[in-house]
Amino acid sequence: MAEKGYVEKSFNRDTNYINDRITADGSSGWPVEPGRYRLIAARACPWANRTIIVRRLLGLEDAISMGLAGPTHDANSWTFDLDPGGVDPVLGIPRLKDAFEKRQPGYPRGITVPAIVDIPSGEVVTNDFPRITEDFFFQWKKFHREGAPDLWPADRREEMEQVMRRIYTEINNGVYRCGFAGEQQAYDEAYDRLFTALDWVSERLEGQRYLMGDSITEADVRLFTTLARFDPVYHGHFKCNRSKLSEMPVLWAYARDLFTTPGFGDTTDFAQIKKHYYVVHHDVNPTGIVPDGPDLSNWLDPHGREKLGGSPFGQGTPPGAIPEGERVSPEGNPLLGPDGLVR
Amino acid sequence: MAEKGYVEKSFNRDTNYINDRITADGSSGWPVEPGRYRLIAARACPWANRTIIVRRLLGLEDAISMGLAGPTHDANSWTFDLDPGGVDPVLGIPRLKDAFEKRQPGYPRGITVPAIVDIPSGEVVTNDFPRITEDFFFQWKKFHREGAPDLWPADRREEMEQVMRRIYTEINNGVYRCGFAGEQQAYDEAYDRLFTALDWVSERLEGQRYLMGDSITEADVRLFTTLARFDPVYHGHFKCNRSKLSEMPVLWAYARDLFTTPGFGDTTDFAQIKKHYYVVHHDVNPTGIVPDGPDLSNWLDPHGREKLGGSPFGQGTPPGAIPEGERVSPEGNPLLGPDGLVR
Repeated sequence: MAEKGYVEKSFNRDTNYINDRITADGSSGWPVEPGRYRLIAARACPWANRTIIVRRLLGLEDAISMGLAGPTHDANSWTFDLDPGGVDPVLGIPRLKDAFEKRQPGYPRGITVPAIVDIPSGEVVTNDFPRITEDFFFQWKKFHREGAPDLWPADRREEMEQVMRRIYTEINNGVYRCGFAGEQQAYDEAYDRLFTALDWVSERLEGQRYLMGDSITEADVRLFTTLARFDPVYHGHFKCNRSKLSEMPVLWAYARDLFTTPGFGDTTDFAQIKKHYYVVHHDVNPTGIVPDGPDLSNWLDPHGREKLGGSPFGQGTPPGAIPEGERVSPEGNPLLGPDGLVR
Repeated sequence: MAEKGYVEKSFNRDTNYINDRITADGSSGWPVEPGRYRLIAARACPWANRTIIVRRLLGLEDAISMGLAGPTHDANSWTFDLDPGGVDPVLGIPRLKDAFEKRQPGYPRGITVPAIVDIPSGEVVTNDFPRITEDFFFQWKKFHREGAPDLWPADRREEMEQVMRRIYTEINNGVYRCGFAGEQQAYDEAYDRLFTALDWVSERLEGQRYLMGDSITEADVRLFTTLARFDPVYHGHFKCNRSKLSEMPVLWAYARDLFTTPGFGDTTDFAQIKKHYYVVHHDVNPTGIVPDGPDLSNWLDPHGREKLGGSPFGQGTPPGAIPEGERVSPEGNPLLGPDGLVR
């Protein structure tokens, strides 16, 4: 997302989104249709990173194309500065804002990623990020690859919603609550909430390989994108510094397990992640200097969590190769090989 | 010290000090004389922390009194805001600047700690910090406690000067060079210099207990004050984040060994340290929020360095109790007992 205000007395996320849905039965007015929609993401953004991971896990690359905004943005919009000529090659626009304006002239709220754009009209259909991945799973089922994992196991659904809710309010959003606090007391409370929740997931993961059991689910995707950013950004920039992720043994092993699972580490661009936060949040980091650390090599240390059993993809199989144009660069993630996969 | 400019293109420390010396033979015009001089320090400041450690190691408490400025200061001066009425009880002044002005009306440079003030005249004698500890050792020898350690071993002097020089330029000052860099390239270079030097001291300390061999010297004092601030401040605030001190095994064990040695941990006030940097450097941390981390409890993990042999005080003995008025508070350092010593 693009947060506009950054530091405020006590951080509150604007959760008013364009919340149309793309449905299999077309009842929403936006029917599932391969080739019709374009996912606009940014590798830097944790909320967008979710959609990149899920799209790859489910094999939706051919059904839903993907455009990537650069890591930084101006006060108005994410921009397609990574593309030739600074224009998205499919939508033909330089700024994501253009697709929001097409949908609603004078669109008054934040221009956020992820967003799904209807290619024929150039209009944003939705930027309601939790629904996007949910709909990738349930509405786009017909177009999933063979062997796509069951990210929303029906028999765990109720508990999974509770787990994801707490991960959202306390962890995904909790790091922002620390970093954007404008008063000491608001920060102190945010810090306590965050680490209380990290202790909770750590305890939960001590005896089981993934959040909901033996296989990865949407809940793991949602936790991972925050953990991947923890040491590079949240620990220092957002003052989430009771300890580094690498000092929380269970969570760190869990994060490394996921990192080396296709779909996770291979969609993580550390350089864009750092550049985004440290450059965009000028009221937190006025110099705009991007730290050179942390050393990332320990992400590949053996995690040892196979001993907990389970299988990441359950009855399914891992996703395969990454299309050349969608690979994270070696500068973005030095732990990847030339095929874009974790070495 | 009180840095005035903070962030600049490439950080350069102003090293013009009032550099009179207090000498045993009185030839400088400032003769050694118990009770005549007052050391003004601040627990927050690494350069001042040196003098607090050395004064205690040598047992100079009765010969040289100590006043402590609070952790934060305004653009003009460190202040005695911790003292009743906000006035140093011996000098009777609210701001350290008053003693600099007394010495030189219109004093144009930074008002820095540590400073030594001549109590009768109220004038600053010197704020030339590397000389202050050197003179505590050589010029005040007659007033050292029985069992004071040999912090400047004559047979290692030449090498020790080289080691201290490199520690000063690359590490003590190196962290500031990272934190106050106003351009990415200056930061990148500073980061490389710093970690190159930390790797060097780490290698040096792998097979020997202290920097110059089997016992602590002035060189260890100088390295320690930077290491103690590394994870609480420099790692995040100054972007010295290749790794935390706690992730550099040799240096971390060395720092813990020193921390539990009388004179080191018991003069370290983590709360004042964090408050100083995070509040005073408004152009690095505009919100003024002070992080609640890091968790400090691992400072007391067994360091295991006794196996390298040596003895911290050589032929000498450890310093004893800390006068009640000079103890670091439990809020400042939760690892200390009510007697002000490391638990």
